[in-house]
Amino acid sequence: MKTNRSLVSVEDLSTEELMDLFKLSTDMDRDLRSGKRLTEMQGKIMATLFYEPSTRTRLSFESAMRRLGGSVISVADPRSSSAAKGESLADSIRVVSSYSDLIIIRHPLEGAAKLASRFSSVPVINAGDGSGQHPTQTLLDLYTIHREFGRIDDLTITVLGDLKYGRTTHSLLLALARFEVRVNLVSPPILKVPSHILDRVKSSLQMVETDSLESVIEDTDVLYVTRIQKERFADMNEYRSVIGSYSVVRETVDLMKQQSIILHPLPRVDEIDENVDNDKRARYFEQAAYGVPVRMALIHKILE
Amino acid sequence: MKTNRSLVSVEDLSTEELMDLFKLSTDMDRDLRSGKRLTEMQGKIMATLFYEPSTRTRLSFESAMRRLGGSVISVADPRSSSAAKGESLADSIRVVSSYSDLIIIRHPLEGAAKLASRFSSVPVINAGDGSGQHPTQTLLDLYTIHREFGRIDDLTITVLGDLKYGRTTHSLLLALARFEVRVNLVSPPILKVPSHILDRVKSSLQMVETDSLESVIEDTDVLYVTRIQKERFADMNEYRSVIGSYSVVRETVDLMKQQSIILHPLPRVDEIDENVDNDKRARYFEQAAYGVPVRMALIHKILE
Amino acid sequence: MKTNRSLVSVEDLSTEELMDLFKLSTDMDRDLRSGKRLTEMQGKIMATLFYEPSTRTRLSFESAMRRLGGSVISVADPRSSSAAKGESLADSIRVVSSYSDLIIIRHPLEGAAKLASRFSSVPVINAGDGSGQHPTQTLLDLYTIHREFGRIDDLTITVLGDLKYGRTTHSLLLALARFEVRVNLVSPPILKVPSHILDRVKSSLQMVETDSLESVIEDTDVLYVTRIQKERFADMNEYRSVIGSYSVVRETVDLMKQQSIILHPLPRVDEIDENVDNDKRARYFEQAAYGVPVRMALIHKILE
Repeated sequence: MKTNRSLVSVEDLSTEELMDLFKLSTDMDRDLRSGKRLTEMQGKIMATLFYEPSTRTRLSFESAMRRLGGSVISVADPRSSSAAKGESLADSIRVVSSYSDLIIIRHPLEGAAKLASRFSSVPVINAGDGSGQHPTQTLLDLYTIHREFGRIDDLTITVLGDLKYGRTTHSLLLALARFEVRVNLVSPPILKVPSHILDRVKSSLQMVETDSLESVIEDTDVLYVTRIQKERFADMNEYRSVIGSYSVVRETVDLMKQQSIILHPLPRVDEIDENVDNDKRARYFEQAAYGVPVRMALIHKILE
Repeated sequence: MKTNRSLVSVEDLSTEELMDLFKLSTDMDRDLRSGKRLTEMQGKIMATLFYEPSTRTRLSFESAMRRLGGSVISVADPRSSSAAKGESLADSIRVVSSYSDLIIIRHPLEGAAKLASRFSSVPVINAGDGSGQHPTQTLLDLYTIHREFGRIDDLTITVLGDLKYGRTTHSLLLALARFEVRVNLVSPPILKVPSHILDRVKSSLQMVETDSLESVIEDTDVLYVTRIQKERFADMNEYRSVIGSYSVVRETVDLMKQQSIILHPLPRVDEIDENVDNDKRARYFEQAAYGVPVRMALIHKILE
Repeated sequence: MKTNRSLVSVEDLSTEELMDLFKLSTDMDRDLRSGKRLTEMQGKIMATLFYEPSTRTRLSFESAMRRLGGSVISVADPRSSSAAKGESLADSIRVVSSYSDLIIIRHPLEGAAKLASRFSSVPVINAGDGSGQHPTQTLLDLYTIHREFGRIDDLTITVLGDLKYGRTTHSLLLALARFEVRVNLVSPPILKVPSHILDRVKSSLQMVETDSLESVIEDTDVLYVTRIQKERFADMNEYRSVIGSYSVVRETVDLMKQQSIILHPLPRVDEIDENVDNDKRARYFEQAAYGVPVRMALIHKILE
């Protein structure tokens, strides 16, 4: 991975770079668990610019930078920023990049991270740009799969929930397209993957679209669950009629293979029942925890 | 004190542990004043999760952790958090505890800190949970008394103001119950200590309830003042008629013993007149300042 | 410069102290560019208290303190502070000064920083108090001029825009009064410099007031641009009729000397066209970047 390069999309990384990053993530995770104190980022400053709220992503980036011995300056609330005075994103980025060594940006508008990377004098990492990309979420999704199975190839991955609006599932599909996987896309008919995404992956991915989780659950290695958003339904009766079929409960898990795993990008509302949390296949909290070593590895690769 | 243990209530600590903590607080205070640079928390991360605003408590915890050489990640504003997306507190805590070594939580609901301590993989310190506990405030109240008098036993402590709703006074009473003290409870009749608190302390504490500060001020060693909240009164005439009797002014202090002290958990509005601030008995700003060494000692004891 | 002294106004500094500070700023800037790791503020804590939003000023102070190896505790949002509970500024400052070694304050009311400096037990730096002063902005304005020309004396400085309400231009004029400069004041007639400011500088500054930028642009060494705020005009037709004359566009710059420079305190809205950004005379982003070394030097001088 080229030093001093921005990360706007997972497609910015070659598969080799991805595997390199995973290896380093595992090293970082081992250092964290052993309590080893890292100092390689001492004297470096990361700026987190969050124009949209996000506890999890911001805190895990900040934890990663501090675990490496670095410092953080932060705008966690867009209302306390100069954007309120009408400043352009380009100007804000030009200035903040003169205060820091690395910028992490979350923004409600698609394309914001790309624009930021053009005007910044330091590398920029996209932490979510509207309905666009959220590459570090995808990195830790892939890392978790790779770590659990020792590979990504030759797995059956079932993606469940809101496949129309969920940006994490789009990024995940684009990233999976470079591996040899079977993908089941399970959603209510009105929340299917948009055709502009399907078109980009259909030549490389073996895919099945269905509205029945039961029909695919037994063959699944990775069940990737996302939230079905009530507000997407004009008709609340329709919402209530479908929601049950897309919730993961004890009985759902009982149908799954012993070696399979359940992931979720979080936050979870009620699409996975709390009774499932203690099952050994439930890996979504480990997945969230991997956010720190994966982001440590990424910061290291970019600033080394 | 057991390493790696949460602090939800002052009752989690034995009297011996309390005295140990006070001794260490005094050591920490001496180190601070001498400008000694401490590094024992280098590489450690404290997460401050404030679901309710609080400058004083959050900043003093963060100052304490940084004085020990540690780092902080922070959610200071609940509106910029995942709670806004409907995530449960249990899930938020599970995730944040994988990013940090210690969690400080303030939450508007009683019992939140207890729940957090159950789901966290790292120790949790309660920084106030609704009408529940605020144990570190009580620790620094007791520490200030102990430091000023060299003891807590055999003192006359007058608690003044809103004794019905003030959570700091409830915590303080519960903590005082393990010492040999005389307590005067001074409040307007409608703001007396609730019976569920009185019942827990009446067998161990020698108490007098009164609505007259004058009747007890001369024997007082420690005058602990809290705010009478205007919004508690349905009748503004009633509020105006009582408020004067419960404000501490120059004339009040003139009735007090030379060796007595005045405390207040702050923020103060107008229940202590500013003319009192320069009297040597006014110790509320020293009390606030002790928040740092007491919290340093606590962090040390929990993470050592 | 006296150690442990507050900075409320640029007038707190003698010209000799100013020149000393600029020399140290250049040293700090060189250290930053060389990647040298500084540690002189290790163990020290700076509190940033922003009762009014400001990304740029807060982040550049925090970056400066971290570049020096120090720590930061921060209130970036007044709504999450004790001020919301009715606490006086004096009380807040007394408490926060017991948690930190240095306070940076921004407040909507003029005089707030002065008051804070009276109640604080540690030095206070004014980061903008309402329509009052913003001395560190003026320091970096002067530093940029001094660095570009090697001097401030004997230059022609044209100040453009809203000269009535813009607090940065008032501070700048007061500071320029101690140098031998020629000043052009260019604004719409309704936004001229107030007489209470003019009265303080007219004996020492050679000034021309005009509403025509064209009449003075060719002789200008430093063009200092500020925003004309739409909301100042009751009549939108009047606003539209004047705004064009006070925007800096490609054609404006073509009239300027090759060795001249264009500054702006930022944020910029549309008073400088983006086409100007790449001209070598456009120095406003360098000016913003100097905010870090200038504030590093200031922190060093105050806490050394």
